[in-house]
Amino acid sequence: MASSRDSTSRSVSGRRPLPIPASTQQGRRRSPLAARAVLQAALDLLDSRDVGYRGLTMQAVAARSGVSKATLYRWWPNKAHLVLDVYRSKSARDVAASVTGDLRTDLQSHLGRLAFALINLESSRTVAEITLAAAENRSFGELYRQTLLKERRQAVLDILIAGRARGQVRAEADLTVAVDAAFGAIHHRLLLTKEPIDGPFTSALAGLIVDGLSP
Amino acid sequence: MASSRDSTSRSVSGRRPLPIPASTQQGRRRSPLAARAVLQAALDLLDSRDVGYRGLTMQAVAARSGVSKATLYRWWPNKAHLVLDVYRSKSARDVAASVTGDLRTDLQSHLGRLAFALINLESSRTVAEITLAAAENRSFGELYRQTLLKERRQAVLDILIAGRARGQVRAEADLTVAVDAAFGAIHHRLLLTKEPIDGPFTSALAGLIVDGLSP
Repeated sequence: MASSRDSTSRSVSGRRPLPIPASTQQGRRRSPLAARAVLQAALDLLDSRDVGYRGLTMQAVAARSGVSKATLYRWWPNKAHLVLDVYRSKSARDVAASVTGDLRTDLQSHLGRLAFALINLESSRTVAEITLAAAENRSFGELYRQTLLKERRQAVLDILIAGRARGQVRAEADLTVAVDAAFGAIHHRLLLTKEPIDGPFTSALAGLIVDGLSP
Repeated sequence: MASSRDSTSRSVSGRRPLPIPASTQQGRRRSPLAARAVLQAALDLLDSRDVGYRGLTMQAVAARSGVSKATLYRWWPNKAHLVLDVYRSKSARDVAASVTGDLRTDLQSHLGRLAFALINLESSRTVAEITLAAAENRSFGELYRQTLLKERRQAVLDILIAGRARGQVRAEADLTVAVDAAFGAIHHRLLLTKEPIDGPFTSALAGLIVDGLSP
């Protein structure tokens, strides 16, 4: 496929490397270079049209990264753990929090970058598959809540808390519900309505939340 | 199971009957009484702990309702169509729009009743299964968008449009995004975070949306 070859060459040539999620490095003595090669190989496979989340195998990740399957399994007990780390790395790189001092600008830019990371290349299909897997499978859901979802939710919450500290958010407002509205609306379009997740949408969503929380 | 027997006897004894979705009655010459018996039988099975959406069969619905399987299949091509009609009937009965003239009161009461219908008895598991099936399966998703989801979204949209006509909503506000936030946040808790969908949550959510849209 031309498209998957494109995405491969792009990753080999010019992408910034994926950072390695801190919590999974602890106590496992990973080689950072090898771990990064594994995360990048898995991301390339996830993004390619003919693999995706369902088609991904630890075998293929081992082959592509040059890291042995035994090592792979020592670092990640299964594919679900590995894929969550791929997306944790990806979001740490693509969706860093911006703090301009203005709540509306920060939230718009954060949700905009989140949406871009989501719809970029083939990610939307993979993210939809992962979200579904988390909803369907109890243990994967628990892991997802404790890692990727928690970190992504916290990044939005941090923006709202910073806004509150500057007096741009009502002191008594329920920030958790605002975070639910942000991720919920995005996932709702991704999984159910299939309406576009684009700039006008994320701007309107950020605006609704900022106005809804304003003192 | 005691709980499923309870729910059965309640349905036989005192529940209001399920209305039949208008669009599916057209041109199929259904007996309203038989159709209602089928919808009620299917709802009882969906709500019982040991059946649910996955365990539901047309055979069991036929047996419970006393309507022949041939007739059942003439009216509903498969289980997915039938189940959507069950929930369309249920929401027409349980989640009618209230119009008090105050946007906040109307939206709070609507989302509150929606949440109650959702978490009532065993419905939350079934609703989660249906939502997942709609996200996973292209043709079922299309049907879901065109029927149940469309009607539920329209009911919330109608409340917002009525509010706008009374000057309680900014003229240029994007009401579609507000509807995404409402359903998205509820489904987000139902499927992903598993946080409670209760009165305080739906009040806060309605408040966020109403304040976010206010002129």
